[in-house]
Amino acid sequence: MQPLRAGVVGASGYSGLELTRILLRHERVSLAFATSDRWEGQAIAAKTGLDSDLSYVSVEQGVAAAKDCQVVFLATPAESSLELGPRLAALGVTVVDLAGTFRLKDAALYPPFYRFEHSAPDLLAKAVYGLPELFREQVKGARFVANPGCYPTAAALSVAPLLKAGLVEPQSLVINAASGVSGAGRKATEDFGFMEVDSDFRAYRTLKHQHLPEIRQTLTRVAGADVPLVFTPHLLPVKRGILSTATAKVKKGVTTTQVQQALADAYGGEPFIGLKGEPDAVRLADVVLTPKCLVGAATDGSHVVAIAAIDNLLKGAASQAVQNMNLALGLPEPLGLL
Amino acid sequence: MQPLRAGVVGASGYSGLELTRILLRHERVSLAFATSDRWEGQAIAAKTGLDSDLSYVSVEQGVAAAKDCQVVFLATPAESSLELGPRLAALGVTVVDLAGTFRLKDAALYPPFYRFEHSAPDLLAKAVYGLPELFREQVKGARFVANPGCYPTAAALSVAPLLKAGLVEPQSLVINAASGVSGAGRKATEDFGFMEVDSDFRAYRTLKHQHLPEIRQTLTRVAGADVPLVFTPHLLPVKRGILSTATAKVKKGVTTTQVQQALADAYGGEPFIGLKGEPDAVRLADVVLTPKCLVGAATDGSHVVAIAAIDNLLKGAASQAVQNMNLALGLPEPLGLL
Amino acid sequence: MQPLRAGVVGASGYSGLELTRILLRHERVSLAFATSDRWEGQAIAAKTGLDSDLSYVSVEQGVAAAKDCQVVFLATPAESSLELGPRLAALGVTVVDLAGTFRLKDAALYPPFYRFEHSAPDLLAKAVYGLPELFREQVKGARFVANPGCYPTAAALSVAPLLKAGLVEPQSLVINAASGVSGAGRKATEDFGFMEVDSDFRAYRTLKHQHLPEIRQTLTRVAGADVPLVFTPHLLPVKRGILSTATAKVKKGVTTTQVQQALADAYGGEPFIGLKGEPDAVRLADVVLTPKCLVGAATDGSHVVAIAAIDNLLKGAASQAVQNMNLALGLPEPLGLL
Amino acid sequence: MQPLRAGVVGASGYSGLELTRILLRHERVSLAFATSDRWEGQAIAAKTGLDSDLSYVSVEQGVAAAKDCQVVFLATPAESSLELGPRLAALGVTVVDLAGTFRLKDAALYPPFYRFEHSAPDLLAKAVYGLPELFREQVKGARFVANPGCYPTAAALSVAPLLKAGLVEPQSLVINAASGVSGAGRKATEDFGFMEVDSDFRAYRTLKHQHLPEIRQTLTRVAGADVPLVFTPHLLPVKRGILSTATAKVKKGVTTTQVQQALADAYGGEPFIGLKGEPDAVRLADVVLTPKCLVGAATDGSHVVAIAAIDNLLKGAASQAVQNMNLALGLPEPLGLL
Repeated sequence: MQPLRAGVVGASGYSGLELTRILLRHERVSLAFATSDRWEGQAIAAKTGLDSDLSYVSVEQGVAAAKDCQVVFLATPAESSLELGPRLAALGVTVVDLAGTFRLKDAALYPPFYRFEHSAPDLLAKAVYGLPELFREQVKGARFVANPGCYPTAAALSVAPLLKAGLVEPQSLVINAASGVSGAGRKATEDFGFMEVDSDFRAYRTLKHQHLPEIRQTLTRVAGADVPLVFTPHLLPVKRGILSTATAKVKKGVTTTQVQQALADAYGGEPFIGLKGEPDAVRLADVVLTPKCLVGAATDGSHVVAIAAIDNLLKGAASQAVQNMNLALGLPEPLGLL
Repeated sequence: MQPLRAGVVGASGYSGLELTRILLRHERVSLAFATSDRWEGQAIAAKTGLDSDLSYVSVEQGVAAAKDCQVVFLATPAESSLELGPRLAALGVTVVDLAGTFRLKDAALYPPFYRFEHSAPDLLAKAVYGLPELFREQVKGARFVANPGCYPTAAALSVAPLLKAGLVEPQSLVINAASGVSGAGRKATEDFGFMEVDSDFRAYRTLKHQHLPEIRQTLTRVAGADVPLVFTPHLLPVKRGILSTATAKVKKGVTTTQVQQALADAYGGEPFIGLKGEPDAVRLADVVLTPKCLVGAATDGSHVVAIAAIDNLLKGAASQAVQNMNLALGLPEPLGLL
Repeated sequence: MQPLRAGVVGASGYSGLELTRILLRHERVSLAFATSDRWEGQAIAAKTGLDSDLSYVSVEQGVAAAKDCQVVFLATPAESSLELGPRLAALGVTVVDLAGTFRLKDAALYPPFYRFEHSAPDLLAKAVYGLPELFREQVKGARFVANPGCYPTAAALSVAPLLKAGLVEPQSLVINAASGVSGAGRKATEDFGFMEVDSDFRAYRTLKHQHLPEIRQTLTRVAGADVPLVFTPHLLPVKRGILSTATAKVKKGVTTTQVQQALADAYGGEPFIGLKGEPDAVRLADVVLTPKCLVGAATDGSHVVAIAAIDNLLKGAASQAVQNMNLALGLPEPLGLL
Repeated sequence: MQPLRAGVVGASGYSGLELTRILLRHERVSLAFATSDRWEGQAIAAKTGLDSDLSYVSVEQGVAAAKDCQVVFLATPAESSLELGPRLAALGVTVVDLAGTFRLKDAALYPPFYRFEHSAPDLLAKAVYGLPELFREQVKGARFVANPGCYPTAAALSVAPLLKAGLVEPQSLVINAASGVSGAGRKATEDFGFMEVDSDFRAYRTLKHQHLPEIRQTLTRVAGADVPLVFTPHLLPVKRGILSTATAKVKKGVTTTQVQQALADAYGGEPFIGLKGEPDAVRLADVVLTPKCLVGAATDGSHVVAIAAIDNLLKGAASQAVQNMNLALGLPEPLGLL
């Protein structure tokens, strides 16, 4: 079989680098190009530690090469995806966008949460939200996939089955989450310096994080009713990983057995979900460097606590993007990931 | 003025060591004894880095010396406090107990949450819960003070003023918190080894932590109505500090200005509370090694997020115990702490 | 081809666990058994995260199964290897011992450095020291391989080519090294608790570490003259990795070009050595989770500084053991490792 | 007594901030000004957490205020000290410079190690090198003090008494040291980001660090003979602290008792030196946040290993600067520090 030709725009960010590595190892993919302003002209092998004859190219060289590709990934800032998404879509290539640019169906949410007017509403309408464990059928054969955010992946996977099964009160959902520093991207700012982050812990963008409307959109879609949650992200003194702790009131008489059964029913055959039973058994250390999401939940008859953990750069970005590519191009979903 | 003679039982735990240091520096206190099984016979100066001619003694030597003291602190496991509390109280000395043994007014909560039957219900009834910022008047002159837990201190201080001011729905309270490793005490268990904790984050004792009924008791007392919260503690890869993130639904029309004003009204003159305004401005790194609690809160009109941070060994244990001693013995509350 | 049957004794230590994982993925190996007191009866799949139908067995069950194996690894404490090594060798199976038990040719060094009399001097004499980059020919076809220690691997690889090329004064060698906490093994001692290790750095076993005579033996063998070095290990607040910093006086007129050329000559085709040029370019973060050793060196005309970094559990233990197995059994050396 | 008026130029660097805090608490000092480009106009109380009515001012405002001061500290980059040192000295105020600008008596060393020509050779000749434990008499009454570097403080204190006592071979000295991230100063560079530093360890500026000639100058002065050492600094994943590990060949027959006695003789009454005996007992964690230097040493009859630890921002910068101020102005040396 001919390998599928894939390109990566924005290959020197943390997610872009992980993505490049996955694609270089993927048995059905041939990496056609990877762009990087920072590393332009340098060998891809040197940065990834993997075999490759290619060097990083400029974005424009990447876009020029895209027309000979079957799939292009955008691991770019949201504003860049807004410009590049339509250009690449126009070439007929399948696009998987890792930014938030095409995730929110309501374009009016972009100015308050992303600080730009959305200039591509048609493509936004067509884009498929690529959270395979919840919306697999839509991703199959999709031409433009909006890859979910890291927090929304963890948060939604932990509680979606409980909402779907009608076990919890949708109005009572509260999500707290904590992320490693790589979630902030590769930036030389003092805020993410070792001196600021080590031995510290704090919340950030309380009540206004851009992932809040994304989580709400996903859970509302799953629950069939508005889920007006509150979401508080925190910064952990670790490099990688997200742990999401969701709480909600349970409906009368709901037991831990029912809660854990709902997760088992939803995720029984899922290759990228690990069911841990008790929420205390879900640990960041067990998901880092893996493409998996671990989930666990329990109730005391009053509230449920549902916890999920992912590697923010893998299931929260790069490996999920490859799950989506596999589904979009008709390959087996776990190919190149397990 | 004669110095007040103070003793510490359990001086080699992390809180006991901090407490010993504070007392050695306290201008009105003379340390009469400090007990430690682990360090018995060793010089207190060597372990504290401060001037002292004393050596650590056994618990029984400490109890024998207690009758010449004005105040004795119990920095002991809950079962030890249960045995020693009544013995010391019978000597007529003022006691400040740092364990959970005398905090919960409902003795029936001890078997499920502390795994023992409470054998001293009379003393439990008399014990004063020593959270000065909320219940200062009761602590003044008290003979037996139950020093609050670390999580309950942070959690209660962040939301009590909002409940008291009637700004939030008491039924909707959710508290997530994260603690440094010293919260587990000085134990040689693999669970708290560097290999397990570094780069990790996880919840523990979900839905059943012994601080849950303590927080509930305090907030119910403040709100004048039951506050049936859910509380999820997490383990941080840091040595010290607790950050508590509380969320609740606000009553209609409540604004961030009102929320922050309620905190300012409650804590305006408090020497150990720092008002940060926005919840994102409350950081672990700013309270570690200080006796202060920082608080911040905001609302989006739907939910409030109220965050507090403390050093779990100081405001969450040792420095609060000295605040309580100062109040109980009629000294200025901040003496020896600022 | 028939798979080679391999067994692991001591599979729940950090090195034993890494080794088990490598063997489970090795295309020519079938894992026959893995022993663990701690995990006996539990599924190997659960602990390794990899496919396996086996459960951990007792040491005696492992030894009984060993007679049907081609190779058995001892990832055991030194005293256990002393007892098991001869028993397994008598079965005719190839043995790779990861302990220090069969590394030092001078049996008189065991009492001072390992605190036991060596009871198997014949096997000690026959054992081959398995540092392939220096002594590859001896390892090929060997029946009993003493797998090098973690510090000796890093230290020897950094300076052996310089000694061999006669560029440095053998009498002037000084080695400082620092290791992550996993080097201490899986122990529940307070010394390696997060509270002790985080934010700390210290030397340990100064002038008497058991790896000192091992490094000296290797370098003396390479230099053809005694290399009476001083070796100071330190404990780093990281999980994994060793960085070794060697200094020595250079012979008159020696240049950085010559030094780096000597390393290139020695390691040019080595699959597990990465030549970094400058010593500052050798970083712990670049070797962790890899089977590679990075080396770099430079001189100011007076001294040379030669730095090497390895993952102490891989090139310093488990992956090197598989290199040795591959060589001993006639397989391509990098099989299952790259 | 009138308080002494002191000013700080460069008060927002890590050392400058520590220095400001020490001065605000010093019973004989009144802080007259503190300059900061970054924090100009902001309250000193807000940044230091201590009582002060002042706000940070510009450098020029500081220099203008300096003429009414008894002492001014320069906690500035080396180039700034080169410009400001002579200007302040001309005002007749006592100056303590924390940069490297006036430490090296040989002006020819500035171009290779500091990348500037020294434009103030007269002041350089007059400047007193302020390492009180070695050169106390010169500092008393000095008008211009060059405060030692962090590495040179730790390195020199660990071996100077051994050189002075003639116990070691001066030609054989090797110093390896490791520093926390604060040693790099407050910079928003990716190199010191959490993502780069956490879990890593590496050497930097091998063979060319600017502290190499400073250590050599100090030890040569002490030994009365050239000490041509090699010095390799490393970056630790911790915030604060330096551990220096020195090795040298001992003269024939030298014992650990002699080595430790030499340290005891040299430092017996020193308020800022803690003698630990064995080198393994010297830990970073025990000096961080203290103005002390811990030292320990031992020999195996062939080599000595001498280890010292300091807080790089205190004994390695700010607290040592105040020791020097106290000596220069005729105050008791430990005032304001213990």
